[in-house]
Amino acid sequence: MPLPVPVLPEGVDPAWLPTAAFRAVGRRRTLIRGWDPLAETVHGEVAEACRRFGGRVVRGGVPDGTYDLVLDLGGESHGDEDFTCARDGGTTTVIASGGRGLLYGLFHVVRLGEAAFTGAWARDTHRPTLALRMLDHWDNVAVHPVIGQVERGYAGGSLFWEEGRARGDLERVRAYGRLLAACGINAVAVNNVNVHETEAHLLTDRIGEVAAIADVLRPYGVRTHLSVSFAAPVVLGGLPTADPLDEAVRGWWATATRRVYAAIPDFGGYVVKADSEGQPGPFAYGRTHADGANMLAAALEPYDGTVHWRAFVYDHRQDWRDRTTDRARAAFDHFVPLDGEFAANAVLQVKHGPMDFQVREPVSPLIGAMPRTRLAVELQVTQEYTGQQRHVCWLGPMWSEVLRFRPEQGLSVGELAQGGLVAVSNAGDDPFWTGHPLAQANLYTFGRLAWAPDADPLGVLDEWIRLTHPDAPRPLAEGLHAVLDGSWRTYEKYTAPLGVGFMVQPGHHYGPSVDGYEYSPWGTYHFADRDGIGVDRSAASGTGYAAQYAKPWAELYEPPDTCPDELLLFFHHVPYGHLLNSGKTVIQHIYDTHFEGVEEVEEAREVWARLAGLVDPARHARVAERYEEQLRSAREWRDQINSYFFRKSGVPDERGRRIY
Amino acid sequence: MPLPVPVLPEGVDPAWLPTAAFRAVGRRRTLIRGWDPLAETVHGEVAEACRRFGGRVVRGGVPDGTYDLVLDLGGESHGDEDFTCARDGGTTTVIASGGRGLLYGLFHVVRLGEAAFTGAWARDTHRPTLALRMLDHWDNVAVHPVIGQVERGYAGGSLFWEEGRARGDLERVRAYGRLLAACGINAVAVNNVNVHETEAHLLTDRIGEVAAIADVLRPYGVRTHLSVSFAAPVVLGGLPTADPLDEAVRGWWATATRRVYAAIPDFGGYVVKADSEGQPGPFAYGRTHADGANMLAAALEPYDGTVHWRAFVYDHRQDWRDRTTDRARAAFDHFVPLDGEFAANAVLQVKHGPMDFQVREPVSPLIGAMPRTRLAVELQVTQEYTGQQRHVCWLGPMWSEVLRFRPEQGLSVGELAQGGLVAVSNAGDDPFWTGHPLAQANLYTFGRLAWAPDADPLGVLDEWIRLTHPDAPRPLAEGLHAVLDGSWRTYEKYTAPLGVGFMVQPGHHYGPSVDGYEYSPWGTYHFADRDGIGVDRSAASGTGYAAQYAKPWAELYEPPDTCPDELLLFFHHVPYGHLLNSGKTVIQHIYDTHFEGVEEVEEAREVWARLAGLVDPARHARVAERYEEQLRSAREWRDQINSYFFRKSGVPDERGRRIY
Repeated sequence: MPLPVPVLPEGVDPAWLPTAAFRAVGRRRTLIRGWDPLAETVHGEVAEACRRFGGRVVRGGVPDGTYDLVLDLGGESHGDEDFTCARDGGTTTVIASGGRGLLYGLFHVVRLGEAAFTGAWARDTHRPTLALRMLDHWDNVAVHPVIGQVERGYAGGSLFWEEGRARGDLERVRAYGRLLAACGINAVAVNNVNVHETEAHLLTDRIGEVAAIADVLRPYGVRTHLSVSFAAPVVLGGLPTADPLDEAVRGWWATATRRVYAAIPDFGGYVVKADSEGQPGPFAYGRTHADGANMLAAALEPYDGTVHWRAFVYDHRQDWRDRTTDRARAAFDHFVPLDGEFAANAVLQVKHGPMDFQVREPVSPLIGAMPRTRLAVELQVTQEYTGQQRHVCWLGPMWSEVLRFRPEQGLSVGELAQGGLVAVSNAGDDPFWTGHPLAQANLYTFGRLAWAPDADPLGVLDEWIRLTHPDAPRPLAEGLHAVLDGSWRTYEKYTAPLGVGFMVQPGHHYGPSVDGYEYSPWGTYHFADRDGIGVDRSAASGTGYAAQYAKPWAELYEPPDTCPDELLLFFHHVPYGHLLNSGKTVIQHIYDTHFEGVEEVEEAREVWARLAGLVDPARHARVAERYEEQLRSAREWRDQINSYFFRKSGVPDERGRRIY
Repeated sequence: MPLPVPVLPEGVDPAWLPTAAFRAVGRRRTLIRGWDPLAETVHGEVAEACRRFGGRVVRGGVPDGTYDLVLDLGGESHGDEDFTCARDGGTTTVIASGGRGLLYGLFHVVRLGEAAFTGAWARDTHRPTLALRMLDHWDNVAVHPVIGQVERGYAGGSLFWEEGRARGDLERVRAYGRLLAACGINAVAVNNVNVHETEAHLLTDRIGEVAAIADVLRPYGVRTHLSVSFAAPVVLGGLPTADPLDEAVRGWWATATRRVYAAIPDFGGYVVKADSEGQPGPFAYGRTHADGANMLAAALEPYDGTVHWRAFVYDHRQDWRDRTTDRARAAFDHFVPLDGEFAANAVLQVKHGPMDFQVREPVSPLIGAMPRTRLAVELQVTQEYTGQQRHVCWLGPMWSEVLRFRPEQGLSVGELAQGGLVAVSNAGDDPFWTGHPLAQANLYTFGRLAWAPDADPLGVLDEWIRLTHPDAPRPLAEGLHAVLDGSWRTYEKYTAPLGVGFMVQPGHHYGPSVDGYEYSPWGTYHFADRDGIGVDRSAASGTGYAAQYAKPWAELYEPPDTCPDELLLFFHHVPYGHLLNSGKTVIQHIYDTHFEGVEEVEEAREVWARLAGLVDPARHARVAERYEEQLRSAREWRDQINSYFFRKSGVPDERGRRIY
């Protein structure tokens, strides 16, 4: 039985799966061979496409040369997700040994469009570099009085939860699963890593709600994971302790996990934020994080489940007066000594940078420093620090830089992340899914880079443009490319300079506040005074963070003159007159980039304005309206940053522009 | 029938009316003459005191020389609140022509204690300088999601309201009325000047809840007022406009007011915050604030009611880049042109300073500049900007400075405030009424200064100490005096320097953030750069605010060298090296005062520690615990302010103390 394609609620944007994207497939004759639940998903997709565009689909049978497309669940030597694709004699053939591979093969053909049915080519094999490509949803079940329904969510409410309960109608979750499959994502954690009282119960008495979500995601090859509270044995089980070495605690987790798998046989595993920003953890019992993770790994092991243990552990009650503590060092200092102690199904989930998803950070030195530990790398698709989906900020180039970074001679970050690539989702129940319609590109790009971390991000961007706007005239495709391509660097220009980070309004993190975190307990300082700015993280005179890197990088970052400009203030405290490798002084760089950044937003807004008439009016209006806010906000950033540094340094702008 | 004295709920502190305060009266024979509802209150007080201490009270009859105290409601020539007091032939005689006068006379005798029954003295007359002595409660009926039950409340919940409804049991409100009477307060506005949806209904369908409060306050001579929404005719009445010149609108207010007086015959009147911080007002209809106030005055006039119209009107969406707009000028600029246009029962309620209850501000130039308008002066007893009842900050000296200030040759502020002295209350349902037990002194002092604005605040302080601790041994009385006396100047020392104001955390206003409001729309800036700091409000080169004052003050404030040190940065932008009249540079003054302020808190904490055993343990513990927080916070202020200015100025501390 073909699985019906999800019906989008009235007014919801189809994102990168508009009907027209299926035209090439839907016009043709397709044969689908082999039996698997996901083959029914594939069947449903092709059948719907044919209904729209007049083609034909046959289920089972022999490829007799009359088919344009054969989707064959027949190979034996591949993994569950791999597929091959070839074209010969007028027939395009996708072969996969597993249902997911077949589904990914179909979407590969969809992406190719008419090109999939042109010419001939030899069999090529498609295989994800990373087996786990996961989205973490920081969705609360109960609306938090301060944080709301979705922590750091900028796209309406949660797709899964509404005011304390799972949504009754999960058709939109099905549609979400379909979008994820089309960009290669195969796992979702359905609740916030900050597990509050209500959410803790998802693990036990409310597991049925999670199972219902898992049931609708499964046909799209997406497994469901759950964030759990380390204190669950106490909070839910009534035990006197959550000590990971306590037998009763271990027994409690074993029983709880058995019940989870009874409800969700393909459950992915647990996500844990422990001893971090107030969440409970093993430190309370004098145990290590390996002890904590391994306890959960043991409970999950019989079912092939995985625990994702976040490495985001640092002192969030630091005294700003204390210059010896460096938050950037924390993950490395905490976890490297534990290398080799984690169970095989315990994955250490590491943020890509040492701080917290700033627009520019070095790659975390933890990645590559724990060869005997499975690492997952965590990105943030939701734009907490990058404009909160009111600003256009396409993060593909940033992620690509991270994933291509080679901590040592040898493997890249994308290859080292054998525990998976994980990202905090930017999707919600907003009609455009992501608040800003152009932020869909971030979600799509994440999925595609998780599949192929070495992919050219610009290629992915153009792929997203083509899929989302299948009939786009050239000016539209070029316009979309133009406004997205450089948007991350534009955002970087008008916000915190040269890798120094933060300078955001405390709490909600939107808009500038240069000193907002300067005298706070959060460990995020810039140390600007009348003479200079930046954090000395050198080994010679600073916190020694630079020495956490392997030799070539440590040597590069250690002296200010070889440190890359864009990271200078992350690694060094320098005078405002310090000459960058670009030939500019730091202070002039600050002025120039902030004026340029605003000009670039003005230009992008103009480009977008010229696309009116080429884009769906609702989409055009939403983006146009957000450009107004982005421009207002970018000017606020420019003026606050420039004023702050002019007042502090006293150095006038070389070009005499207006600084308040 | 004597009115029974209110029974305090278990654990609630008696504040300045402990049983022992009535010992002198309670041991004696008292005659009460004359008939008035408040004479029954007086009767109940004396009867209860006699029950405790063995005296006797007689109601009605002839003073035959056998009484120690005669409370005689007999005079004819006095106002309702005046009383005379004399002692002759072993009898102390209080004569009043009104019930309130008799009650105030009784509390006068209570304050005198044994001295009331010693020696002999001629008749002296006691008469409040100001007829209206009022507390505004910024209490919400419904708990506001951000602001809570009490806006800027630091003493638990509201005395009147709880989670959307009036409290059922009003015995504590009765006790509150009694405390107010004992310090001379005779009016209370029972709800927040920011009138939200729920609170708007108090005016109409929920007036019964206000009437119930009025009923229990009336026997203590306290009239009830109500904050109303200018938009009430629209919000409650369904009219299309709230235009104050519209006949239907005026009719609506007339009807609504008639119904209010049917429920509360001695209702005091309305309090209105209009066109301020988002509240609706007459500007929307192109009308003046006199039009708005006079419309309400007309509705109240038949019943002798008053409208208190707040002058706190300014642009709270100012662009920080705009140096021409000066929030300090706003009240004067808005209201002085309207002088003479307000109705006789419309009172313009002016904050004592031009900004917003900072620890140091000049007196508002509006006071004295509107001779044909009745002005009320508004103080803030709740410590929004002065430590939020976690810090000891007794405001008596500050208020006294304000009240004794003479805008021109002639009347003082205390005399000019013929519309009343009003304060935002610091009381709530906290067991100590005010959060910090020592903050009771602020509430008491406000009442006494409202009665006699030229009173010596230190005398009032000692009076509060004696009443609150009637059997205090000398070290306790001296200790209390020591920790309170200089506490305002101490607080000033460790917070924003030299009158510059703000530098608080945005939103909640607790703790330091030097730049917290520097780039905000609130109009509260310090303009510190590497060379200097302060706001140029001179007429010669600044915003011209200084010229809003009458000549002697304008001439004093205009040049930096005659401007008083403590207001220098309010009026002038000066280099860090500017020499104060004290002989110190501005920067060295900043360092010195911040070190001194913390030292003074340390000393006060020590003084308090030595009082253990002399004070009720619960009270001692509460204060001791708050001193820990005050000290932590004061150190944070010191270090942030000193670091900020050291980083900016580069000038080292002359004494080489630790600056981070």
